[in-house]
Amino acid sequence: MTEKTAYTPATHTAPPARFSHGVRKGGILQVAGQVGFPPARDGAAPRPAGPTLRAQMEQTLANVEAVLREAGSGWEDAVMIRVYLTDTAHFAEMNEIYDAYFAELAVPPAARTTVYVGLPEGLLVEIDAMAVLG
Amino acid sequence: MTEKTAYTPATHTAPPARFSHGVRKGGILQVAGQVGFPPARDGAAPRPAGPTLRAQMEQTLANVEAVLREAGSGWEDAVMIRVYLTDTAHFAEMNEIYDAYFAELAVPPAARTTVYVGLPEGLLVEIDAMAVLG
Amino acid sequence: MTEKTAYTPATHTAPPARFSHGVRKGGILQVAGQVGFPPARDGAAPRPAGPTLRAQMEQTLANVEAVLREAGSGWEDAVMIRVYLTDTAHFAEMNEIYDAYFAELAVPPAARTTVYVGLPEGLLVEIDAMAVLG
Repeated sequence: MTEKTAYTPATHTAPPARFSHGVRKGGILQVAGQVGFPPARDGAAPRPAGPTLRAQMEQTLANVEAVLREAGSGWEDAVMIRVYLTDTAHFAEMNEIYDAYFAELAVPPAARTTVYVGLPEGLLVEIDAMAVLG
Repeated sequence: MTEKTAYTPATHTAPPARFSHGVRKGGILQVAGQVGFPPARDGAAPRPAGPTLRAQMEQTLANVEAVLREAGSGWEDAVMIRVYLTDTAHFAEMNEIYDAYFAELAVPPAARTTVYVGLPEGLLVEIDAMAVLG
Repeated sequence: MTEKTAYTPATHTAPPARFSHGVRKGGILQVAGQVGFPPARDGAAPRPAGPTLRAQMEQTLANVEAVLREAGSGWEDAVMIRVYLTDTAHFAEMNEIYDAYFAELAVPPAARTTVYVGLPEGLLVEIDAMAVLG
């Protein structure tokens, strides 16, 4: 039976429930929905980077990337990125930040779906990703 | 070519459109979005368990698990669980129920994304899952 | 290392950001969220088919299928279809259109999740899909 492995980067707190920030089984690496919390500090409640969309987006992308890297992977392996936004007015700016972030990606970028959903107060964006390894 | 197999537990009615409650192809088993309908009874329209979030969550998780088991799998193979809630105020209680449900899981839990979306009237939660088998 | 390949059907414009309409790595083919834009015309801004749900649904399904075909795949390989609707009142009609579209599918249909989210103005539906090849 294929082993299942969880990944929690040193910058991340333990998830707030019984789920994994990243988990690999076989060739599939799934990154849980990440939001814009800066690196965890002992004893401090997490607060999102901000207040701008840019600050939250960049922190969120960095958090997804940290999970990918912890698993020995990276954006080059990502096949799907889901972006959850709370405001349709953020679409153009999100794309700008996204394009700049991935400017140097040498392989085809992941597929993507952007949907507008509700998120807990203060959060403007959430992103999850699936990667295929090997 | 890899065979594609559909799974419908005995407790489930046929899906309301041309989709499968669970489908496996190669090592991937995908469970369709499940809601809190108790086991199907002939001639009765499905009504969600309830009215509490706990009742719907437990039924929904049981329905996902039934599809996984029908395919010879289980939560230990799940790599991603998506939770769709209609009310951000339900997050903490959802996590409690989730943690209790998975208290005895012996392998790393699946990654998870929780988003707040609209669902048909009366439904508080919907959950889908992807598993990697073999 | 497994090669990563992007697919853009001739009917599609380049994505509005650094993502792929379809991308394959290993046995996984992911189709990005497609909406109801008719085939791209040079110099014209994309406008969704419409104004009916039927027109948008059929165009959206055709757009997903075009990506699958471009990758040498098709609905028979699809394991998951996510339907994003903006209006719960569209569920029954969506199912009718969906069933008619897949009436001749010879293999078990994909799993599906339908959620109600916000989409940019004028869009009634968005669909993404994951296929397992080989």
